[in-house]
Amino acid sequence: MAATEVNMSDGEQFFEGVEKLLEIWFTTDDGNAKTADLRKIPRHNLESLLKIVRCEIISFTKNDQIDAYVLSESSLFISKRRFILKTCGTTIPLLCLEPLLHLAEQFAGFTEVEDLFYSRKNYRRPELQVTPHKHFDQEVALLDALFPDGAAYCLGAINRDCWFLYTLNPVPQRNRRPALPPLEPDQTLEILMTDLDPEIMSIFTREECLNATEATKKAGIDKIIPNMVIDDFLFEPCGYSMNGVTKNGCYMTIHITPENEFSYVSFETNVPSSSYRDIIDKVIDTFLPGKFTVTIFANQTSPVKSTTKELIHMNAIGEWLRRDIQQCNFKNYDLLYAFYSKFPS
Amino acid sequence: MAATEVNMSDGEQFFEGVEKLLEIWFTTDDGNAKTADLRKIPRHNLESLLKIVRCEIISFTKNDQIDAYVLSESSLFISKRRFILKTCGTTIPLLCLEPLLHLAEQFAGFTEVEDLFYSRKNYRRPELQVTPHKHFDQEVALLDALFPDGAAYCLGAINRDCWFLYTLNPVPQRNRRPALPPLEPDQTLEILMTDLDPEIMSIFTREECLNATEATKKAGIDKIIPNMVIDDFLFEPCGYSMNGVTKNGCYMTIHITPENEFSYVSFETNVPSSSYRDIIDKVIDTFLPGKFTVTIFANQTSPVKSTTKELIHMNAIGEWLRRDIQQCNFKNYDLLYAFYSKFPS
Repeated sequence: MAATEVNMSDGEQFFEGVEKLLEIWFTTDDGNAKTADLRKIPRHNLESLLKIVRCEIISFTKNDQIDAYVLSESSLFISKRRFILKTCGTTIPLLCLEPLLHLAEQFAGFTEVEDLFYSRKNYRRPELQVTPHKHFDQEVALLDALFPDGAAYCLGAINRDCWFLYTLNPVPQRNRRPALPPLEPDQTLEILMTDLDPEIMSIFTREECLNATEATKKAGIDKIIPNMVIDDFLFEPCGYSMNGVTKNGCYMTIHITPENEFSYVSFETNVPSSSYRDIIDKVIDTFLPGKFTVTIFANQTSPVKSTTKELIHMNAIGEWLRRDIQQCNFKNYDLLYAFYSKFPS
Repeated sequence: MAATEVNMSDGEQFFEGVEKLLEIWFTTDDGNAKTADLRKIPRHNLESLLKIVRCEIISFTKNDQIDAYVLSESSLFISKRRFILKTCGTTIPLLCLEPLLHLAEQFAGFTEVEDLFYSRKNYRRPELQVTPHKHFDQEVALLDALFPDGAAYCLGAINRDCWFLYTLNPVPQRNRRPALPPLEPDQTLEILMTDLDPEIMSIFTREECLNATEATKKAGIDKIIPNMVIDDFLFEPCGYSMNGVTKNGCYMTIHITPENEFSYVSFETNVPSSSYRDIIDKVIDTFLPGKFTVTIFANQTSPVKSTTKELIHMNAIGEWLRRDIQQCNFKNYDLLYAFYSKFPS
């Protein structure tokens, strides 16, 4: 997605497609769990929050389970107790963290962060980022100041393509009270793609498509996960964002930076599935990347665990050879990270 | 192991027990595999090499399969085609890499590096290290300049206890010739311990023990893996190193920095075993650390794979709770990393 392009001093155009992804699960330390709801935060306050991040709402769709916002730089999803903010370019989402915690308490009735995930791929041009997002060490320092139980990880090869994660990893307590509320099945699949097929990328320009609906259909994005209510946006002169939501509150989101010199596509969903293989195959076939990372978070009750095992035993997905695969086990989630690149022809 | 102590400007004593561990497997691109042997490198040249690293040989033992050196800062093991250099303190082992490659060609007949592993735990005092060992980024830059296929990883939590690894991870080749010589079973277990029991640590001082043999027996080090020929050394006023070798060329090595303020013990072995659980339990019970990391490398034909599965399903080893566990799959090896800490009493 490319709302604004950075004009380099030498006239070169560049846009950092790589998103910073912040997902927070809230809970309460008292009996307000039933009435607490993040969607009680007024729109005005959300807009102020996004001003800090340096982006704004450009489209909105909702149902009983989830509010889905398309932003000038990527997406925002808010459900009862989960807040997902994904922003690309030179946005500074970590600066909204403290104000967000205050809003969650003041308006939504949430007093505690149950879980937190901050992640991103390595940037293409880190030197163009704004503090505290120039370096993972900066991001970690900011998060460490807020969360005593935070743990920072780098998955994949630090000197090549890699993926950074900050999450909560508290010391296990012998007499710890059971999690509140009880663990629901949860999973997230993310596919971050670079070096994409130029012909497919040309779909996501105003030259080739009149509007987002046309681009969505032409690329086959509506067929990746059927039965999603889609809110899509085609930027001027190029770039594309879409949110999809299901009745039961699941989401998918795609963001496309189509320029050949720095092409980038991200795909993310939390739909439950006994295998993510089908979705991964469809996404790869839809965008034909040169390289991509796959990350899968799955908690103990998620049905997607079999996908992890499958990917561990596969040295390739179609023409894409696996260069790295890593697994981590966290407090509530297991994580798989894998990196693939097309065989050099 | 503590041959020399750093005297800080404020009179504070400190020694960095954390070792830099370099393991290189050599091969030949011609027919000299049978006659090539790293042990053909003359002692004089080895000593010059170690001068670059800033350490020296203080004891030596050998058999048909392996040469084992105790160094002023840790250990060196040389077998036919494998070179293992483990050095602590403020040594600079990566600076010996280029000269070593030349010696391997000139004297031993090896023209190619088949595999390479450079690893270390995070230092306690990185600011006291010497370039290029002050920061993992520096070490990676040096290695990247020598090895186009190198990949750098960080296992565990970057902002807490973690472990760095650089290894070769070449792009898979469609028509790649089979590895030369054929893959033999191989595995390495390493346990890196901090915050150790002060009473046990006092064994490794000249105050409590007259010599190394006494310390080895008193601590029960000779019982961890029986039937090793042990070459041990007790430093003045404190600190301990030992190498053990078996007839068939397996090794173990232990290095101890006993001072309470910065206690550190490392254990490493490549003995094949259907389970490393027994050895891990013995090591932990021998030294009673507050925290420790376990790393296990195992190639496809190694019998230790079951240990990896066992550790994944265990949330604790005795009183030590698991804080992190990660797995990576590389070209020839699978790697398990786990970090444990004692439950706060």
